[in-house]
This record gives sequence, C-alpha cells and structure tokens, in this order.
Amino acid sequence: MNANTPTDVMFSFTGLATRAEEHKDGFGIAFFEGCGLRLFVDHHSARVSPVAELVKHYPIKSDNVIAHIRKATQGVVSLENTHPFVRELWGRYWVFAHNGDLKGFAPVLHGAFRPVGRTDSELAFCWLMQELAKAHASVPSVEELTATLSELVPRLAAHGTFNMLLSNGQALWAHGTTRLHYLERKHPFGPAHLQDEDVRVDFAAETTARDRVAVIATEPLTRDEPWIAFAPGELKVFVDGQLLVRSETGRLTHA
Amino acid sequence: MNANTPTDVMFSFTGLATRAEEHKDGFGIAFFEGCGLRLFVDHHSARVSPVAELVKHYPIKSDNVIAHIRKATQGVVSLENTHPFVRELWGRYWVFAHNGDLKGFAPVLHGAFRPVGRTDSELAFCWLMQELAKAHASVPSVEELTATLSELVPRLAAHGTFNMLLSNGQALWAHGTTRLHYLERKHPFGPAHLQDEDVRVDFAAETTARDRVAVIATEPLTRDEPWIAFAPGELKVFVDGQLLVRSETGRLTHA
Repeated sequence: MNANTPTDVMFSFTGLATRAEEHKDGFGIAFFEGCGLRLFVDHHSARVSPVAELVKHYPIKSDNVIAHIRKATQGVVSLENTHPFVRELWGRYWVFAHNGDLKGFAPVLHGAFRPVGRTDSELAFCWLMQELAKAHASVPSVEELTATLSELVPRLAAHGTFNMLLSNGQALWAHGTTRLHYLERKHPFGPAHLQDEDVRVDFAAETTARDRVAVIATEPLTRDEPWIAFAPGELKVFVDGQLLVRSETGRLTHA
Repeated sequence: MNANTPTDVMFSFTGLATRAEEHKDGFGIAFFEGCGLRLFVDHHSARVSPVAELVKHYPIKSDNVIAHIRKATQGVVSLENTHPFVRELWGRYWVFAHNGDLKGFAPVLHGAFRPVGRTDSELAFCWLMQELAKAHASVPSVEELTATLSELVPRLAAHGTFNMLLSNGQALWAHGTTRLHYLERKHPFGPAHLQDEDVRVDFAAETTARDRVAVIATEPLTRDEPWIAFAPGELKVFVDGQLLVRSETGRLTHA
C-alpha cells in the first residue's frame, strides 16, 4: 500500500490473511511512518497468529505498507526466513518482500549486506541493496532510484519468478513476473467488498476528497474495483498513492 | 534477558511497563529466536500501547530479549527514535538499547551504518557497528567481541551516561555508567514479586532444573531476588543465562 496520507490497512490485511490457508508458513507486515518503521513478523499463519490479530484491529496509520504471507519454497519455516526483510541504507530503512522462486542465483556479496536466513529472497534483497549502494553515494531521487532498479531487477528476474515489493518510505516499487495487480483508489470513493470474505467497507465514509491510495497485490483483494494486471517484467513505482508514469519529456511524473 | 532455553518475558515486561509512567515516550522490545528477530515498537507508552498489551499476553519464547521504555532527551517522540535499534552485520542481526545522554558525540561515519532517526543513541550504535565491522572480517567469537567492545565502549561512555544493552542473539552485553543491575535465576527456582506491582510468579512451576536466566535492568524488577549492581564503567557479557567471568588463565568462561 502506498498513500498520500497516513492510512490504515486493516481492511486489506483482513483480505490478505484469509489467503494464508495455503500461504501458512509465517507472515510479516512492515509499516513506514515517515522514515520510522514497524515490522511485525510471526512464524504462525496470518489466520491464527495473535500478532496478525493485533494488525487486523489496531489502526496503524502509515503511508507505505508491505505485507507478505509465506509459502516456503527455499528455507525452513522460521523467523529469520520470514518476509518482509529490512536493511538500512543511506540513513533510510528499506523493506523488501518477494513472491516467487529464483534458481541458480549465487551472487558474490562483497558489500555490507548479508542474509541472516536461508531464502533466495533475502539473498536477492542483499544483492539489490549492495548494487544500489554502489550505484549512488547518498540517497538519490525516486527517479534515479527507479532508473537503477530498472537495470538491476531484470538481472534477478532472469533467475525465475520475481514478483516483488520494495519501499524506502518515500516510494513503493513493484515488479511483476507472473502475477501482480494494482489499484488506485481516489475521489469519488465508494464501497468495496473483499474478494475472499464477506467483508465490506465504504471508503467514502473514511476518506477526504484529496486522499489517494494505491494497493498492489498478487491477486485483486476486492471484487468490485478496477484492478489492473502488471505485464510480465513490468517495474512500476508509486508515490503519494499514485502510479508514476513517463511524460513526453521522458520524466517520471504523476499522470 | 539472556537465557539458556527459550523463555518468555511476560512477567518482567509487565514490571517494566509500570515504569512507563515517567518513561512514556514510546517503547520497544526485540526478541531473538535463534538468529531470527522480532521487534515490536510503538510511540505510545508501554502502559497504554496495544502492542505492549500483546507482548504482556503472548508468550513469545526467546533466548535473548532487549526491551526499552523511552524518556526522550535527544530527538522528538517518533517511531524512528524509538529503541531498540537493529542493524545487520556479518549476516546477524544486532540489537541495541541505551539509557542515558551523550554530549558532544559527533563521530565520522564512513562505514555502512547511518542513523535513520535523530537520537544520540542510534548514532552511538551506528558508530559501534562501524568499528566492529572494521575490527573483524567476519563474526568473531563472543570472547573476541567482548575484547573489542571493551575498547570501544569507554570511548562512548566518555561522552556522558551510557547504560546500554547489546545482543546479536548469541550473547548479551551490558554496560553500566550510572544505574544497572543484574540477576541470575537458576535452580532451585522460587517465587518472585514484582517491585512496582502486586504481581507474583512462582518460577519453580515454570522451569526445569537446568534452566538459567539472566535479567539485566536499570533498577531491580523484583523485590525478593538477589540483584547485583554494576560498578560504574563495567561491561558484562551473558551467555546461556549466565555471566561470563575471566578465569585464572585469562579466558572468559562460565563460573
């Protein structure tokens, strides 16, 4: 979730958690509040975890949220293998979650980032952080970061399925290999129903006309909103609840 | 808390949280589970935070726990200034909390660790991580780390009050400038009463004869156990629920 005003994700997370029947090997959710960060992780499924229960009912207002429900492919079920992963670079926290499976990815890690657990995902994240640190001396603009990520991400995606979310609290980057959808909620807001559960919210009652929220998810979370599928290999960046697009002059900007 | 068997801290945290009346500017608690880590932080006081409520009632079993209740001296009340702080070094998470105030501490940070918030504490932690990274090429033994920390910590303590806790999940280091106490719980276990609240636990009912737990706190948390005060400037290291002491041959070992 990426928003222009601090927003809670109790509705979306409730929808995501119902999908933890299959993706039952732990869950995690990271909330940026400015450059500050909260990360909740549990090795229990989001369907039964008391930590997930807290997240469903404690309205944490955040401008960037990344949540993940895990189905273990590489690495055992344990806390150190639970997404999202966090590192600090240039005095900012970076949060990363990955859905997919990378084969034969064994980069040389010569930088300051090393995996703690044993997943291909955390390894990919550490490599990404290392390469970002090499490419820029201090925190670059969202546009510059997007250009660098556009070169780095295909090198990861070449190893398999790489649906990923990345945020530093300023922007949210999303890359889809196989399945990824996004939705932009904006004025006029209306009601929405969760896809997997009989839960409904009327966003009109909870928002102001200037609020904008982008939600990115593997599969659409609601059944009555205009979700858009990522094309294979697409990297998109969201700022202030809106997709950035390339203008005629070649700059990344809000449409 | 440092223990030889995964132990919950609901009792101790309940005691600590009552002290959040004065130390009301946020709280945080980090639990190692092996090399994995959970970190709960909130900018609300531990007396009222729903996150603190979860920690008081969800029995998270951990071998190393660091908790902190904040009274802001430097840096505003916000999530990025909330202890404990976490960084990764050598493929291990490191957790740091500080009680005190450092004056005129402005080190050159030329390494891979930069503060996200604006506290003297996080700055001290980043410098400590940088210097550890310079001193060792990969994760050294607890004994080697203790030797390096014994050289680094006084350079921080020279700037003011530096009561601190540091853990990488293998050991817990504690340094006292002004106020710090520790307690070793071991067989035979008995009952204990919280210092600040009418709460009592009988550890005999919850432990086995081989369990060992060390608890380190600014002020004793219980009223009927043999807490020992740190001497000013003392750095102590705890492994498997026991203080390490220097043997006749000069090695650090359990007594």
